[in-house]
Amino acid sequence: MKTLDKPVPPGGVIGIIGGGQLGRMLALAAARLGLKTCIYNDENHAPAFQVTPMQIAAPYDDRAMLQGFAEICDVITYEFENLPADSLSYLADLKPLQPGVAALEILQDRYTEKSFVESLGLRVAPFAQVNSDTQARAAFEKIGGPGIIKTRRFGYDGKGQAKVATVDAAATAMTAFKGAPCILEGFVDFAFEASVVAARSADGSFAAYDPPENIHENHILRRSIVPGRLTRAQNDEAKAIAKAIADRLNYVGVLAVELFVLKDGSLLVNEIAPRVHNSGHWTIEACACSQFEQHVRAIAGWPLGDPTRHADAVMENIIGAEVNAWEDLARGGALHLYGKKDAKLGRKMGHVTRLRLKS
Amino acid sequence: MKTLDKPVPPGGVIGIIGGGQLGRMLALAAARLGLKTCIYNDENHAPAFQVTPMQIAAPYDDRAMLQGFAEICDVITYEFENLPADSLSYLADLKPLQPGVAALEILQDRYTEKSFVESLGLRVAPFAQVNSDTQARAAFEKIGGPGIIKTRRFGYDGKGQAKVATVDAAATAMTAFKGAPCILEGFVDFAFEASVVAARSADGSFAAYDPPENIHENHILRRSIVPGRLTRAQNDEAKAIAKAIADRLNYVGVLAVELFVLKDGSLLVNEIAPRVHNSGHWTIEACACSQFEQHVRAIAGWPLGDPTRHADAVMENIIGAEVNAWEDLARGGALHLYGKKDAKLGRKMGHVTRLRLKS
Repeated sequence: MKTLDKPVPPGGVIGIIGGGQLGRMLALAAARLGLKTCIYNDENHAPAFQVTPMQIAAPYDDRAMLQGFAEICDVITYEFENLPADSLSYLADLKPLQPGVAALEILQDRYTEKSFVESLGLRVAPFAQVNSDTQARAAFEKIGGPGIIKTRRFGYDGKGQAKVATVDAAATAMTAFKGAPCILEGFVDFAFEASVVAARSADGSFAAYDPPENIHENHILRRSIVPGRLTRAQNDEAKAIAKAIADRLNYVGVLAVELFVLKDGSLLVNEIAPRVHNSGHWTIEACACSQFEQHVRAIAGWPLGDPTRHADAVMENIIGAEVNAWEDLARGGALHLYGKKDAKLGRKMGHVTRLRLKS
Repeated sequence: MKTLDKPVPPGGVIGIIGGGQLGRMLALAAARLGLKTCIYNDENHAPAFQVTPMQIAAPYDDRAMLQGFAEICDVITYEFENLPADSLSYLADLKPLQPGVAALEILQDRYTEKSFVESLGLRVAPFAQVNSDTQARAAFEKIGGPGIIKTRRFGYDGKGQAKVATVDAAATAMTAFKGAPCILEGFVDFAFEASVVAARSADGSFAAYDPPENIHENHILRRSIVPGRLTRAQNDEAKAIAKAIADRLNYVGVLAVELFVLKDGSLLVNEIAPRVHNSGHWTIEACACSQFEQHVRAIAGWPLGDPTRHADAVMENIIGAEVNAWEDLARGGALHLYGKKDAKLGRKMGHVTRLRLKS
């Protein structure tokens, strides 16, 4: 496993696996710092391919291409966590990979992730491992009520999930997931959702952004509002949760912790994303150093930037055909479009951040 | 001459002639809006080549390459004004070129530029056309004191300029410039320098940024400070000057007007740059819409963005070997590095903007 023994200097190359909007915004942030980026993506068309001449289109398990990619790069990162573990281990032996494989192995799997969070003394929704319809029935009884069956791996934006209201539904869902290892998660009666985006460096320094309140629609983030309904104490607790998680994982880079804020005011960890996060896009305008620049700084061994928020912000996603109103959207707020060709249903096409300045 | 009959939609291609830091920051701003960029540069290595896969390295008068470039682009702009007029006319017949050739023809030549500014009733330093050593002597007598001989074309950062304190020195300078058409400009005893960066759209809408005070060292911009020492009235007057110039030129895009602020409080126009400008870099952090995004919006037919300044700012250039302190520079303020390989003496390698937030 390679480690970074000195900062990547200006002119160095950041390798980014995944060429979606997160990779694109990471590349734009790296460019500000005079760093080059090489994007590795498994399809020929990718939003991030539009913002750098260094790009590789190949499957995520193509060893020869991964090797060529590693040769070009000074440090390697990724924009999404659902990558083949083998490929990541292979890359990590060739060049420094940040965040590291050990952290990713825990967070790629909902069961090990939740067990890890519990081991830190943090609260999560009730959950149980489920590998068969029989286990699903037992888990349903154990959790004691309706919940959600989720595949342990490769879920995002509500994919790989099924709400189950009865024991029979739980068993049926397992059949639909074709025996993929799952968990059953009990429903949480929360007041609202929130998240905290934070960065940790190899030297242990830590910087957290103010946690926004998040509004979801159809399992997709609609809007992040900062400050939201979190109290000052909840704000601090959220940051402390992120720090506890990042420290224990010996994490390097930006991570996001999605939270449920319960009606009694307590915070539950929903899930952890080992990457920059949609609910942190507002940091581009409202902070001196955005989550994207912060991630680049952390993985490249640079000093972390200042996460202080200098304005209140509302970030709203532009989903599917909403992007057709781009000319109107350009009139209000800071518009970001991701360069995607087809405005498919549910696809994130861009976002708008509106600042409410402190006057 | 082609004109833009509808806005360039997301996914469209902005052609940028010149691949320096201004082209690079224009490309990064275009990417935010979901627009692609194609960079045309006359050398193989260019800062802007690092931030887009669409790039052409060819001489600025290579008709075949210019034609290929025009075919790719929906609208064409440039990052510097010293381009062959023939090439620009050629491109303007193929695709919309913004700012247009008519404006550029006036501003490429210091003599027509100053005559134009005077024709608007605006003040400039005393100046006279000089084409020979004999004319230089006569001009020196007319202006009545020491001044600067400047070539009418292709000057920047103090290049193509000679201070002349005596009649004989004026004549000698003309010999040094090998008969290139020049002007003699009288010295102005100013209190300080300032500039105003503004944008105009094809529909006549106009947006000006607050004018910073500028500090030069060795003919190179060292620092822009906003607000500087300009009074509220001077702030407004500077914007009005930019508007008068942009309107009369029927200008489309961002322009910068460099100003002398005299001891009696009056403003003199020093020169006009038909492009984004070093003294506008602070707008990236301190305004909702930066000068780079504003230029892209204007030339692409999009609505102009909000130029309101939400923070006080100091922008400082990183010149030559100063860039070696990049790790320290990364600790304070928003760091921008341009991806240039050799830190030559006097070369602009990056800049840092420090905000003083309104609290």
